[in-house]
Amino acid sequence: MGEFDLIARYFHRPAVHAALGGGDDCALLQPAPGMQLAISTDMLVEGRHFLSTVDPARLGHKALAVNLSDLAACGARPLAFTLALSLPQVDTAWLEGFSRGMLALADAHGCELVGGDTTRGPLNICITVFGEVPRGQALLRSGARPGDDLWVSGSLGDARLALEVFRGTLSVPAGVFDAARLRMELPTPRVALGAALRGIATAAIDVSDGLLGDVGHVLAASNAGARIDATAAVALMSAPPGDPSDGADAERRLGFVLAGGDDYELAFTAPPGARDAVAGAAEQAGVRATRIGQIEAAPGIRLTDADGRPVVQRHASFDHFA
Amino acid sequence: MGEFDLIARYFHRPAVHAALGGGDDCALLQPAPGMQLAISTDMLVEGRHFLSTVDPARLGHKALAVNLSDLAACGARPLAFTLALSLPQVDTAWLEGFSRGMLALADAHGCELVGGDTTRGPLNICITVFGEVPRGQALLRSGARPGDDLWVSGSLGDARLALEVFRGTLSVPAGVFDAARLRMELPTPRVALGAALRGIATAAIDVSDGLLGDVGHVLAASNAGARIDATAAVALMSAPPGDPSDGADAERRLGFVLAGGDDYELAFTAPPGARDAVAGAAEQAGVRATRIGQIEAAPGIRLTDADGRPVVQRHASFDHFA
Repeated sequence: MGEFDLIARYFHRPAVHAALGGGDDCALLQPAPGMQLAISTDMLVEGRHFLSTVDPARLGHKALAVNLSDLAACGARPLAFTLALSLPQVDTAWLEGFSRGMLALADAHGCELVGGDTTRGPLNICITVFGEVPRGQALLRSGARPGDDLWVSGSLGDARLALEVFRGTLSVPAGVFDAARLRMELPTPRVALGAALRGIATAAIDVSDGLLGDVGHVLAASNAGARIDATAAVALMSAPPGDPSDGADAERRLGFVLAGGDDYELAFTAPPGARDAVAGAAEQAGVRATRIGQIEAAPGIRLTDADGRPVVQRHASFDHFA
Repeated sequence: MGEFDLIARYFHRPAVHAALGGGDDCALLQPAPGMQLAISTDMLVEGRHFLSTVDPARLGHKALAVNLSDLAACGARPLAFTLALSLPQVDTAWLEGFSRGMLALADAHGCELVGGDTTRGPLNICITVFGEVPRGQALLRSGARPGDDLWVSGSLGDARLALEVFRGTLSVPAGVFDAARLRMELPTPRVALGAALRGIATAAIDVSDGLLGDVGHVLAASNAGARIDATAAVALMSAPPGDPSDGADAERRLGFVLAGGDDYELAFTAPPGARDAVAGAAEQAGVRATRIGQIEAAPGIRLTDADGRPVVQRHASFDHFA
């Protein structure tokens, strides 16, 4: 199968919203009047962002999901995406699964595949995603203010737990692993929540590299610091704890929550007066939102226990080149 | 050096035109009223799109140039681009050269780097480029009509000649190789010509995989065929012929021109009544435009010699999966 046949067979869809879809030198998009175009790009590499054994349909889902998560963090509505794909060989079963998983998520969000590129080479998936957001209303990292609450959507740490089971550093009951594996392989981008938080949240980011590191980006952009309640944070993990008397287990869970990575939840800030509005937005979006701390003027992140006592922080964020 | 330091050091630029540049979850673009956004993405893989020994500054130039060439083919003015980069290691000399070459070309076209992604992995460069074009004025592949002239900008075949010298299948005088190597490593995207052809050309494409294949895409989209004068086409090669009595040399040159690949010239069609307008657009853009054939109603491409006699066609286009 040649390059053009491959594209036509697995990836070509007629343009619905786009002025011009795939098949020309460029795709054409026409943002609605008053709208800004939000753009994000993510590259996924085998062995680093996904295991070679992953179900291709789940990989297709995840490759688009991590991009939609960036749109969610800006409060943008997904419009379209491009896909560049480097493949070691033409594996039709893999392509069928990959495109099916990806396009199912795309359809669920009304996000059209409008163009792309395919080549032979080590497996690499690069998606660039486009969304629209009313001018001036995008959620940015720079708007957090001292006194704001710090919130997190959904659950944290489970994807990392699944990864550690795959790596063999940990074993958990099969049911716990299956649920955590779903979180790792089929993350849910919080698109509806991001859109619902426009005008409510003062800052937002998607948690992809780990909570501490990603909240750190918000704080750096906002010239602020934060206090995080470690007890509230660790309660965000869906997987149940092991032996309650096992201190190493509790320590590991805190690490997964604070610096696990691959969560694709939203961390966001909002004034205390907006607590009902945040709860309403979360309910409307069908996802839990949990208050885990507060923005403070002093730089840095201070972890406390439930009684407000400092907790020693030993967890760094995931950095691809650290 | 960590991922974020790397981005800040080599790739961060303040946003000039973009509503929001790199450093948040998304970049924000605000196309001017009446404008459509043209989008294209290209992925470059070591060993397939470039040699591992290439000067990193030239590679940075080329990685962006092949994307700008797609905008040129649509008649779009470059606005911005995103860069996703997978690197086997952090090589500061390589990054310095690569970013310098890329950003120099970007600056020359007023095209801002607004976002990106970096990861560790086999070397892979994925750029997505954004341009603007007045609504309804983009040059498409589908507008060629029987009777239209077929034009090509600049020169063809020289990049392939240089590649064959690198491959060791051919040897040429040093001066000929140096010039051809520049065409291969530092292609010039025909952005000004593409914009000048709006309202003049009926269809356009950039010649990246080889003339016959790329003109074939125009013909397929336009439901038409073409006659190409092989003599006029072969004269598009800048490198001088070798021994005129060497039939294999002439045959090889024709192959390089018809199916060499990596040319990044524009092939376009326009009615015969627009010849002066095409010449004016080319002069304004500072590049040669050569008439090499005509669009015909019958499907397929017919090669003729200068006297209109059929020439046997044995040249396929470059296909990454053929």
